[in-house]
Amino acid sequence: MTLKAGILLFDSVNELDFIGPFEVLANSDYLLRVPLFPGMEISPERLDVQLIARTVRPLTCEKGLSVCPTMAIADCDALDILVVPGGSGVDGVMADEETLQWIRAVANGCTWLTSVCNGVFILAAAGLTRGKKVTTHWAALDMLRKTRLTGPVLDGFQYVRDGNLVTSAGVSAGIDMALWIAGQVTSPERARLIQRTMQYDPAPPYAADV
Amino acid sequence: MTLKAGILLFDSVNELDFIGPFEVLANSDYLLRVPLFPGMEISPERLDVQLIARTVRPLTCEKGLSVCPTMAIADCDALDILVVPGGSGVDGVMADEETLQWIRAVANGCTWLTSVCNGVFILAAAGLTRGKKVTTHWAALDMLRKTRLTGPVLDGFQYVRDGNLVTSAGVSAGIDMALWIAGQVTSPERARLIQRTMQYDPAPPYAADV
Repeated sequence: MTLKAGILLFDSVNELDFIGPFEVLANSDYLLRVPLFPGMEISPERLDVQLIARTVRPLTCEKGLSVCPTMAIADCDALDILVVPGGSGVDGVMADEETLQWIRAVANGCTWLTSVCNGVFILAAAGLTRGKKVTTHWAALDMLRKTRLTGPVLDGFQYVRDGNLVTSAGVSAGIDMALWIAGQVTSPERARLIQRTMQYDPAPPYAADV
Repeated sequence: MTLKAGILLFDSVNELDFIGPFEVLANSDYLLRVPLFPGMEISPERLDVQLIARTVRPLTCEKGLSVCPTMAIADCDALDILVVPGGSGVDGVMADEETLQWIRAVANGCTWLTSVCNGVFILAAAGLTRGKKVTTHWAALDMLRKTRLTGPVLDGFQYVRDGNLVTSAGVSAGIDMALWIAGQVTSPERARLIQRTMQYDPAPPYAADV
């Protein structure tokens, strides 16, 4: 069985917001195609990852990267995992009723409904965060509280799970969130292989200047 | 003064290999344009980041992302920072004498010459790693040693600096390496602001199953 993951793209989406989870989720199948772990038994789950937007025309991300989506929303009527990234283009999506309708429709059948950074505002606009514990980028926590479209807005977590809704903190926190999701839909062992494939042993330089 | 950073793109480049450093370096100027740190004094350095390939036609990355470079190599004759990412398309670049010539030419004037993952094989093919301490993705360490095109190949480091050459370990290690470079060309304080902007406080789930 192949699970279907979809990552929403839109004009001025933040680059790492969507590429972090994309790399994590795409590595789940990739590590089966490359001989990185010879002789190791790997769980059989398959994961297909699509980059989904209103149309498949090229769009320009927040920092200037130009990318082509792999699928239009009209061609996707069901997903197991939806990832909604953030970026300075979030306002535009919140005002786009067609995309919000599509999100509501696929969210209905999703095992996991997720956001990265301020992507949670899109899920909130779609009415999918009512009463739910959530998080977002540190600079957007107060703004999210003011919408009154969610339950408690939590600070200090890389990602927050409430039922099948998983919202993550800013930008790179989406990598940790996606690894956690990968471990839930495959196995923690498989998630560790994804982590090794990405050599994700982070050690940020310049420790806090305290 | 605006420093010029260039990230090499090619068919089957790994997505996170180049987007990690791109996000880090692009955030250096981005945090000046968004009101994330009101009232904070920020060092004056400017950093322009281009995604550079043989041509600006769209290319397909390792996991299927289709992107458009922002600049062709023919239009770039000088850089302060060169980032050479890796991916399954590295062999193709190693056999492409025109790109290797361009790398040699710009490397000559670079303050920092860097690679992510198996991108170091491209720098090695260009003759720029002779006698230098280097690193690469864990799965490619032995293969790199066998080329005899470098000095000692080190294991267990996120990135290795030898003179102005900085080579990083696999995929996501490029984020740490780029943060370090950003701190060198601006200031450690500025690098910490970039880290905060990206909310890069990594905490991978599923601790090692020991």
